[in-house]
Order: sequence, then structure tokens, then C-alpha cells
Amino acid sequence: MHELFLIGIGTGNPDHITFQAAEAIRGADLILIPRKGADKADLADLRRQICARVMGEDASDRIAEFDLPVRDASGDYRAGVLDWHDAIAGVWTDTVAAASPAPRKVALLIWGDPSLYDSSLRIAARLSPAPKITVIPGITAIQALCAAHRIPLNEIGAPVVITTGRQIRDHGWPEGADTVVAMLDGGCAFQTLAPEGIRIWWGAYLGMAEEIVLSGQLAEAGPEILTTREEARARHGWLMDIYLMRRSQKRG
Amino acid sequence: MHELFLIGIGTGNPDHITFQAAEAIRGADLILIPRKGADKADLADLRRQICARVMGEDASDRIAEFDLPVRDASGDYRAGVLDWHDAIAGVWTDTVAAASPAPRKVALLIWGDPSLYDSSLRIAARLSPAPKITVIPGITAIQALCAAHRIPLNEIGAPVVITTGRQIRDHGWPEGADTVVAMLDGGCAFQTLAPEGIRIWWGAYLGMAEEIVLSGQLAEAGPEILTTREEARARHGWLMDIYLMRRSQKRG
Repeated sequence: MHELFLIGIGTGNPDHITFQAAEAIRGADLILIPRKGADKADLADLRRQICARVMGEDASDRIAEFDLPVRDASGDYRAGVLDWHDAIAGVWTDTVAAASPAPRKVALLIWGDPSLYDSSLRIAARLSPAPKITVIPGITAIQALCAAHRIPLNEIGAPVVITTGRQIRDHGWPEGADTVVAMLDGGCAFQTLAPEGIRIWWGAYLGMAEEIVLSGQLAEAGPEILTTREEARARHGWLMDIYLMRRSQKRG
Repeated sequence: MHELFLIGIGTGNPDHITFQAAEAIRGADLILIPRKGADKADLADLRRQICARVMGEDASDRIAEFDLPVRDASGDYRAGVLDWHDAIAGVWTDTVAAASPAPRKVALLIWGDPSLYDSSLRIAARLSPAPKITVIPGITAIQALCAAHRIPLNEIGAPVVITTGRQIRDHGWPEGADTVVAMLDGGCAFQTLAPEGIRIWWGAYLGMAEEIVLSGQLAEAGPEILTTREEARARHGWLMDIYLMRRSQKRG
């Protein structure tokens, strides 16, 4: 592997693909795709669908599937993540080594954008010998959320905090922020906030046929989001969601 | 005008266009393009180039140019911006009214993404009668910056603050943040920070042939960025840049 392409593919709408991403997919000798897990079946299928559309007939000849190692969630969060990255780098290396003829250009299709709450760059840094890395941006869930609600991410000239459910749960509403985006939140951390004066814009399966959006004052919309999430998870077997919150008070 | 499409086109690389954006451009009856200003000549050309590529031969028949009103920067910043938005909504309305046959689907090609430090949604909200609005996400300068430097935007599980040069100048380093992205910064607000322990990743003309990137400890890289900016601005007649900074200290 001389070159590794980390290609952002957007959030589930195959039309989120950029011309640049399509070109990189077409130019790759091998595309690594994680085998479908029981809970995120649609994501593996989406990657295969994108390859077929962009590469045409011979797509399957250039795809290698791999089993994503399972992260040890029992101990320290950060240590568990680092061990997991080591294991994934090992699986990438083995999968590429097993391919024949030996590929020079290898690509990974990254959900969203490779720079935003994604581990691929950190995993790629563990590869030895180090390949040349090319990053191709893709549409993120934040952008898909704002587009679905037809809202700006920021207020005029004002800052935005992008954070995680864990941070909100552990540290509360971020200091100095009026607009907060929560990612990686499987536990609905918005429930831990005092809802007065907070408006929320929520979305699940953004960009996909199953897309659901809800918005309103957190006090009313919060419980509705909880119910909607559970129903959707039961129906689809998996759920990916994100939300944006704004406090109405003005900054100094 | 029954429908208005706000279409993100990325940051200057015509290949940043998504399949979704291309489809929306092809489906539009009229595309509004601001006439080139003296200082940002390349941007108007880029929009025309994207239209020609996506729409083919008849692109120019469906393009209407308009002169962007000038913002009054003399008084209060926010009031000046609101007046300016009113004026732009008026120009959009007049330009569409002058088109024959009367267009139903009108599109604007938005630099970056319509949700991020862009006024189009706020201007569109002033139109009367209100058209149906569709937002199509595009690659932002933040993503192009991270891709060019091959860095993640966030540290593992940690928050990110997106803010403006003005906010940094007026309020200093954002509270509680280790990663800060500065946008709309014509004045290099990083100069107002104590540089110790801060690393900076800077980029100009991201995604374009003229792309320049620099990174390093702020104490050393800061002065180099100032010089590089001035040289580039003199050479091209205009400049668009963005930067990301990280503090080395860990969060509690």
C-alpha cells in the first residue's frame, strides 16, 4: 500500500458523494469495506451501493471486506479507544496483504467527513511502512442536520461549539456558547440540561430515505425526541442521530 | 419564484460539487450569480465554470447576474448586516422578476455550505411571497483545511469551537476550548493571543490551484503566516483563508 485515500461519503444519501470522491473511488486499486454488523446493516450496503454506482461493473473485484474489531468498553475510555485503533490498523494491514495483485492505491469510505469524530486518520498513522495519505472531505451530519431544518449553524458572527453527548453529561452546557451541536450521543444528554430557554433541532438517518427531523423548545421537544428515537430504533434495528441546541440569551 | 435552492458548492475546487448539488443545478430554471467584484474575481468565474460543466451548452441561458449591494460598515456591525440583507433580498427579487419566462425554480450557488457563516438563509427569509426553500450542503473551508493538513478537526471525544476573528480579538481564547477554528478573520486575530502552547494550522485558497498551507507553533508560524498572506494577496489581488488552533494543555 503506497497511498491511502480516506474518502468522506456523506451521511447516507448516495448523492452526498462529491465529484472528487467519485474520482478517488474510481482510481483506487482496492476499497476496504467493514463487513456489516447486526446493528448497522444499512451502512455497509450503502458503501457497496456507492462503489457500484461510481465504479460500474467491476466494483466487486476491487472490494475487500474486513471484520471490524470490537472495542473494549470496560476500562478507561481513551485507553480502550487507543487499543481499538491498534487492532483496526492490524486488520487493515492484513486485509491489504491478502489482496492479489498487491494494491498500490487503497481507499476507505468514511461516513461523513474523515476529519470529524472519525478515527481513520489516527488509525492510518499507525500503519507501517507509512503510506501517503490523501483526505477527501465529505458532507457531515452537522451539515445534513442544518440542511434538513433549513437553519444556519451559527447566529450572525457568533461562535458554535461542537461537542459530544459525554461532554454535555459530564460538564453541562459548554461555557460561553449559545449554539451547541451534540454528536456521538447515544444517551440523549440533552435530558441532563435545565431546558428553560433552550431550543433543539434534532435529526436521525439524515440524508436517507428514513430521515426524521423534530424541533422545538427543549422542554416540549425533548420527550417527543425520546419517544421517536425508541420507535425508530425498534423499527430499523439501528439509529444514528444528532442535534443542535441554541440558548436564547444573548452574549455580552 | 416558487422554490429557492441554496446550493453549497465547496471552497473553490469544482470537484467539491456533490451529485446532489449537480442535480439541483441541472433542475433550476434560473441561477443567480453575483457579478464579479474587483477583489474576488475568481469566485464569480468558478460559479460560471461549475454551471457550464454541470448544465452543458445552455448554461448561460439560465444564468442571471446581479450586483451585490455594498454593506455599510460605518455603524453598528449587526444593524449594518441586517440592512444589507434587506438590500440583497430586494436585488434577488428584482433579478428574478426581470427574467423571462418567469422561473419557478431559482438557485443560488453558495461558497462552502449554506449553513456556515453564510447569510443566504437569512436573506431568503425576507422574500415575499415566501418561496419553498431547499438547502443542499457543500464542503466547507473547515473541512478543506483539515483535509489539506490531513488532521482531524477534534481530539478524541473532545469539543471544538468554531468562531470568528472578531470574537477572538474581543474575547480572547474561547473558554473551555482546546481546539478553535477561526473564520471570517481578515485581521489575523491569532496575533492577539499569547502564543505559548498553541499550535496553528493555516490555509488559503483551499481546494484551489493556488492553495497554500502552513502549520507550526504559533510563536514561529504566526509571523510566517502574516508574510505569506501579504505576498499572496499582492499576487492574486484577493485572499480567503482560515485557520485552526490547538492548545496543548488537557481538559479536566
